[in-house]
Amino acid sequence: MIGIGLLEKAENMARKVVIIGGGAAGVDVLELLLRGKEESEDMEITLLKKEKEGFFSMCGLPYALQGMYSLGILDQFHPDVYRDRGIDFRTETKATSIDLEEQSVHLESGEELSYDYLVIATGSKPFIPPIPGTDLEGVYTLICSKDGELISAALNAGEISNGLVIGGGCIGLQAAIAFSKRGIKTTVIERLPSLLPNLLDADMSSIVKDDLEPDINFALGRTVEAITGRRRVESVMSGGEEMPADIVLISAGMRPDVDLAKDAGIDIGESGGIMTDRALRAQKGGRYLDNVFALGDCAAVIDAVTFRPRLSQLASTALIQARVVADNISGIGSSYEPCLSPTAANLSGLQVGSVGITTETARRFGIPVKSGISSRFTKARFFPDTKRIIAKLIFEASSERLIGAQIIAEETVAGRINELTLGIREGITARDIWMRERCFDPSLAMVEDVLVDAAMRARAECPR
Amino acid sequence: MIGIGLLEKAENMARKVVIIGGGAAGVDVLELLLRGKEESEDMEITLLKKEKEGFFSMCGLPYALQGMYSLGILDQFHPDVYRDRGIDFRTETKATSIDLEEQSVHLESGEELSYDYLVIATGSKPFIPPIPGTDLEGVYTLICSKDGELISAALNAGEISNGLVIGGGCIGLQAAIAFSKRGIKTTVIERLPSLLPNLLDADMSSIVKDDLEPDINFALGRTVEAITGRRRVESVMSGGEEMPADIVLISAGMRPDVDLAKDAGIDIGESGGIMTDRALRAQKGGRYLDNVFALGDCAAVIDAVTFRPRLSQLASTALIQARVVADNISGIGSSYEPCLSPTAANLSGLQVGSVGITTETARRFGIPVKSGISSRFTKARFFPDTKRIIAKLIFEASSERLIGAQIIAEETVAGRINELTLGIREGITARDIWMRERCFDPSLAMVEDVLVDAAMRARAECPR
Repeated sequence: MIGIGLLEKAENMARKVVIIGGGAAGVDVLELLLRGKEESEDMEITLLKKEKEGFFSMCGLPYALQGMYSLGILDQFHPDVYRDRGIDFRTETKATSIDLEEQSVHLESGEELSYDYLVIATGSKPFIPPIPGTDLEGVYTLICSKDGELISAALNAGEISNGLVIGGGCIGLQAAIAFSKRGIKTTVIERLPSLLPNLLDADMSSIVKDDLEPDINFALGRTVEAITGRRRVESVMSGGEEMPADIVLISAGMRPDVDLAKDAGIDIGESGGIMTDRALRAQKGGRYLDNVFALGDCAAVIDAVTFRPRLSQLASTALIQARVVADNISGIGSSYEPCLSPTAANLSGLQVGSVGITTETARRFGIPVKSGISSRFTKARFFPDTKRIIAKLIFEASSERLIGAQIIAEETVAGRINELTLGIREGITARDIWMRERCFDPSLAMVEDVLVDAAMRARAECPR
Repeated sequence: MIGIGLLEKAENMARKVVIIGGGAAGVDVLELLLRGKEESEDMEITLLKKEKEGFFSMCGLPYALQGMYSLGILDQFHPDVYRDRGIDFRTETKATSIDLEEQSVHLESGEELSYDYLVIATGSKPFIPPIPGTDLEGVYTLICSKDGELISAALNAGEISNGLVIGGGCIGLQAAIAFSKRGIKTTVIERLPSLLPNLLDADMSSIVKDDLEPDINFALGRTVEAITGRRRVESVMSGGEEMPADIVLISAGMRPDVDLAKDAGIDIGESGGIMTDRALRAQKGGRYLDNVFALGDCAAVIDAVTFRPRLSQLASTALIQARVVADNISGIGSSYEPCLSPTAANLSGLQVGSVGITTETARRFGIPVKSGISSRFTKARFFPDTKRIIAKLIFEASSERLIGAQIIAEETVAGRINELTLGIREGITARDIWMRERCFDPSLAMVEDVLVDAAMRARAECPR
């Protein structure tokens, strides 16, 4: 009888889940564990986050700075939304260490939380180049609501003539557009010779540059030696040139925030992210931990084209991973497929999309490619307000299987990227793109689509 | 020596290709045979068309009537464009019979054209219901440039108060919108109980009806008994009711124009279209003719979900088929895959898309389904000018494989339909849609897309 009683207790005992991190990854796991339920029935869930707000939509931040809406809109919910559902949703709370043996998390307050399942969603932190002056007043990063408030206040103060952005990725360009829209003379310095190097080949990237150039100056292939000024930033030294700057944004990439995991002995891969298996269980000493999951910006993923570990620091990646983690905690065996990281961004009305690998990545991994670029229209040539669209498709040379795509236009980019994401995943070839049905209406498409033309041009090309 | 001479002659002899029909299908075949060439090097190509213009974009006609551009824009090229490239491009020319034994086509002029390859692209003709009054003045169809000119002239004459459209399909609704935009009191009569029955289930269709209803009256589930008037149309009798009408458009569907093929003994299927194999060779007496191809509106296709013959009278279907026919004539073995007929239309700014089969078609073929409808936004909820989007996904009940999709929104419809077309073709399941990556940016998408939500709702549904 006692035995049975204990067993019943064990069965009825709520499983303790601790989620470290309240960005997209952590909150997505929480939301998915609760999906369809009023409260967390058979789980005791604790979420720990350093920030004060429930959830802040980081992806929306650049558009707020561009004046499309107020920053406040991005505060997506108050912690009470989850507290009212029985979740121990802790804000302004810092975990200081993880004890994998004891299955517990130590907090800065001295408190110790035991767990049955641990979810590591510690996100990422901005890379700050090791140069003098990064701590001067007027030097910012753009990764959290606090950053948004500070930059917004600086811009609203209105005494800024020269803005300088270090890094020509998406966030850097978005911020540069925000500066420029406020009438600030803005320069973007990028270490590599072209913009958006993770997303676009140089030929496609130059289209973006040409589009933004009337409003923004670009200094490409240039590093920054120092940020100078007394208390406040006054200028930036780059390539021996002194460039005046009243505001500087550092957006030189994000590094996985893996300090807690590393200290606990969890394996960190060459990409800098936590190593995981397909179930997204964290790896320690080459073995996978049954009850510790890692996802989001802090975790490495397997690239679906190269099959090598990489990072995919996107809200969309975090969401898919959260589905896998929530399923696995709930006892539904689920695995995360190698990653294609489809991306779309909006640069002042110019939509830029990318999926799979670039020509440069293919070269680095020794994959021979054929590629085709086509420039057409989004609607029939004769249709009013038809827009120019440029697409580059990259195929593995011998199989002619699609491995990458880049698209630039004022409309229809995200839909095409989603279509091609599915296409790469399913192994479609250039000939498949030529031979497969697409919908047509002169107000919505050309009879022969830009993607079809790009695929044909690639087929006609000699491999390289 | 003589033998070798003859052989050389045979090899150098140009193959004679005769294309009957100068709509999208016929002109696409011509264009593809010529692709990449200045002129038709090793072929003598003759194209026969009844109409006087080189090519008229039928799909653009309704928008011209709606005032988006002039009709003239739709005259896409003059016959001389092809004549200058050595093509015998004959306009206002009617073929009267095909002699398959003799390999020749007889023209109304008495001329006889021999062929090595024959392409039957005779298109379709409007179905005219067998009721009195269809020949009255003021009663039109909308399938060619002449129709466009006549209706345009009638509308511009400006003495029309009441317009009546017979048929609630795409063309009918487009024409009704054109009438309504001219201030004409317009009614659409549809035989079936809902609009766009080939594309949408009744629940989705009602959204379109609600959207158009302020400007257009609908009489659904109603047949037309007669069109009445002395010389000109005055009214339409429907369900015993007399409805005043100064203009009537009959858009009650298109029937394959197979008279020539049928007279030549070519097999016509239950769908009314010419029977073909995967190479699009026409069938005669159950066998396929090696050198006679049929494509476009006049040909039957195999449905990729039901695997039964059907029609797919779309410019986009004709284009893919033209690639197959041109390849096969050029000696590149090529086959046409079963058809999904992705469709998108623009109804006064409301985009309506559909691919695969509807719930009604599934029911007719005894396919049990699960379906899910979701209503979300095209961009993040907080983004300015985000638009409502409604999607219905239909899955085969046991496998949860996608077999149909219907989408209504002011934007992003065509891209999603193209993505789902690929998805159906590749056999993706509801779970795949849940677990696969999509790009996210608040200006371009929601983190959890309407398609993902619709797939989840379908999974939660009991099969029926």
